[in-house]
Amino acid sequence: MTEQLSSEKQNVIVDAARKRFAYYGFSKVTMDEIAADVGMGKASLYYYFPTKESLFEEVVKQEVDQFFSDIETMLGEKLPACDMLRNYAGKRIEHFRKLANLRALGFQQPKETRASFMEIYKDFQQREVRILQEILQSGKKNGEFAISNPQQSAEVIIQMLYGPRAWLLKKIDKELDAETYHVLERATKEIVEVILNGIVKRR
Amino acid sequence: MTEQLSSEKQNVIVDAARKRFAYYGFSKVTMDEIAADVGMGKASLYYYFPTKESLFEEVVKQEVDQFFSDIETMLGEKLPACDMLRNYAGKRIEHFRKLANLRALGFQQPKETRASFMEIYKDFQQREVRILQEILQSGKKNGEFAISNPQQSAEVIIQMLYGPRAWLLKKIDKELDAETYHVLERATKEIVEVILNGIVKRR
Repeated sequence: MTEQLSSEKQNVIVDAARKRFAYYGFSKVTMDEIAADVGMGKASLYYYFPTKESLFEEVVKQEVDQFFSDIETMLGEKLPACDMLRNYAGKRIEHFRKLANLRALGFQQPKETRASFMEIYKDFQQREVRILQEILQSGKKNGEFAISNPQQSAEVIIQMLYGPRAWLLKKIDKELDAETYHVLERATKEIVEVILNGIVKRR
Repeated sequence: MTEQLSSEKQNVIVDAARKRFAYYGFSKVTMDEIAADVGMGKASLYYYFPTKESLFEEVVKQEVDQFFSDIETMLGEKLPACDMLRNYAGKRIEHFRKLANLRALGFQQPKETRASFMEIYKDFQQREVRILQEILQSGKKNGEFAISNPQQSAEVIIQMLYGPRAWLLKKIDKELDAETYHVLERATKEIVEVILNGIVKRR
């Protein structure tokens, strides 16, 4: 093979794949269809992604990277730490809505991708804690938050943010759809206000 | 059939079944073994519980009823509302540990019991909200808590309490065992303190 891997071409493939996976779901999409979408031979497509699973994983990885990149941009805007936390919690739910749309969450994950997804989500948990630490440290530094140990508080807050989704999944006993995401969004907002109420310094 | 159902006999059966299910797991236990444990004919056992599933459900239901009965006792002790909340959260984790021991949670649930367990857990969610409301109302009444709407706060706090377990399940990617329950217990304690910090009235 003399073909050069082009990152531009890879992005075109991932975009096409994202649309197909979101619309039809992992199991109903074929590599032939994606090759046709991007006007590529099947052999060339396999040169970029040797399996449909690896292509799906790349779609999810890019979604996760986009999320953290948006968060980094937001952190750079030097907002009050309260607003950073509110924005973070909101964007986090929006991110999960996108993953749910790809059927890449919980029970909807294609079985074949389960192991590699575990790695993605473990990594996600660690990056979340780091971002929360940054927000809490910023709020402690500028006198907004009354917390002694931002590192420990970050873990506790992350754990709280896992609450509403788990509660809702138990309540409706199926993966969340567009409608239930509204409930999740509101529940998360309420939780964030209780958290803020607990850590904001009284003047 | 002229045999009278005796609630005493029923309790003996449920106790024997609980021990077997906890030790061997639902699928490996037979009705013959339980009948032998309680010195009963198999026909008599089926008179009380027509299926192994119905017996397992009764074991779980009794576990849940025992939990709420313990909570009612605790609420009757007229403790400070802060301590009521701490105790509630602690007993709740203890309860889940018992259910996990029976392999009656999440993925470990026998498939045949899934539908009826959904009813049990929906009911559980509603009873939890009522208890939280009672605790919050008591704290509001005696001036411990600064909350305007105990009903709404109860829902938010319940959702937060779902957090650590969901977070831990994601982290370890399997059902919780005895060791992970220690982590869950500590995480829950920390969350409760953040919640209290957020609702306790400053003097």
